[in-house]
Amino acid sequence: MYKLVLIRHGESTWNLENRFTGWTDVDLTPTGVAQAKQAGQLLKEAGYDFDIAYTSVLKRAVWTLWYALEEMSRTWLPVRHSWRLNERHYGALQGLNKADMAKQYGDEQVLIWRRSYDTPPPALEATDARCERSDRRYSAYNAEVPLTECLKDTVARVLPFWNETIAPSIKSGQRVLIAAHGNSIRALVKYLDNIADDAIVGVNIPNGIPLVYELDADLKPIKSYYLGDPAAAAAAAAAVAAQGKKA
Amino acid sequence: MYKLVLIRHGESTWNLENRFTGWTDVDLTPTGVAQAKQAGQLLKEAGYDFDIAYTSVLKRAVWTLWYALEEMSRTWLPVRHSWRLNERHYGALQGLNKADMAKQYGDEQVLIWRRSYDTPPPALEATDARCERSDRRYSAYNAEVPLTECLKDTVARVLPFWNETIAPSIKSGQRVLIAAHGNSIRALVKYLDNIADDAIVGVNIPNGIPLVYELDADLKPIKSYYLGDPAAAAAAAAAVAAQGKKA
Repeated sequence: MYKLVLIRHGESTWNLENRFTGWTDVDLTPTGVAQAKQAGQLLKEAGYDFDIAYTSVLKRAVWTLWYALEEMSRTWLPVRHSWRLNERHYGALQGLNKADMAKQYGDEQVLIWRRSYDTPPPALEATDARCERSDRRYSAYNAEVPLTECLKDTVARVLPFWNETIAPSIKSGQRVLIAAHGNSIRALVKYLDNIADDAIVGVNIPNGIPLVYELDADLKPIKSYYLGDPAAAAAAAAAVAAQGKKA
Repeated sequence: MYKLVLIRHGESTWNLENRFTGWTDVDLTPTGVAQAKQAGQLLKEAGYDFDIAYTSVLKRAVWTLWYALEEMSRTWLPVRHSWRLNERHYGALQGLNKADMAKQYGDEQVLIWRRSYDTPPPALEATDARCERSDRRYSAYNAEVPLTECLKDTVARVLPFWNETIAPSIKSGQRVLIAAHGNSIRALVKYLDNIADDAIVGVNIPNGIPLVYELDADLKPIKSYYLGDPAAAAAAAAAVAAQGKKA
């Protein structure tokens, strides 16, 4: 039996400002830093240890990992970055305010953009200053850099990294920690728990609370749970679900 | 022609307390954090960029690297850790005060322990609580974990990592940043500049100032220099040289 731990990054500046973030590389807030340290403390207190960590190329996930590793005295662990663990790309919505969009287009349209499995938001133009294709960190993957993504697209680009890198790492006996994003984690959860396309909309991942999967020899989940206070995890997930409402 | 950049970690708590540190995993001070950020700023302002970073498994070097990468917006760069880039092991002196030892044994003996090329300090007992052989991060290298080291020993364990990992990385075209320690950097400087055993004693590496090597196709140095204000680098190196005096 294996254990896998997933952490969604702590609160970012654009979580706080209620803006669609996607691949925009925003900082953690002081609350986000505290959540990251708390995640490391929870793991340490529960006796978790790791052999390798995976994260995205976005600094809110990277710093969440680094602060958590510091709390665990594991700053020396190998860390592997992949753009495939990035947040879902939010297309032309990146940078815009969720509540403003809800006022303009209605709650229902925003919920579709946020939670529809296969309807992506409007795409970025490749010439838009917000487009990441000119960013050095993506230069080797230019043709694969999305201009928008629905969750189905995110699943499609997360799974190769799971299949080719993370799953073999777990099966080789490495204890794996992943620090990533709301939707790249939802992509993994959907795959691992075999959640239907229309049911994943109800799954919300709270910031900075370690999500533990116990996996069998074929990496099928035996059970999964959040570390720490279950009521706190449920409240944090509900807060994520409530983002993007007009009120 | 290649460029290689070396950074000694920022001031640590035991630098400040004037204690022999070696492999003890102490934190950066607030000054050390500022030095690390300043190193990143200097590199950014001078237009440096990197493809990979190497560091030790000691957190004062790791955090120096992380803070510098943040300043350069390069938190997503691949980072490889190796115990071979650790500080020189200080044996039974680890944790003891340099000035106390100078009072007890005399400046000359302390200078020998600090700067002799081939006379190591007294060894730690393997049963000493300070011995790192039970530390998980060294478990794969147990027989190689030193109980004390002179600089000659440090050179001997740094060079395999240079030859097998860093040099091929540079020759493959990767722009390399190394965040390490006073004596692991002196080991590299001695090797690169072909400095005689009795001359390396006069070489002191300041904290948190990027040291640039321009290397030819065979990785022989064309020239080397510190970034930023040369007077500041010289003063910082002189301060390192003055550590461990009685006064």
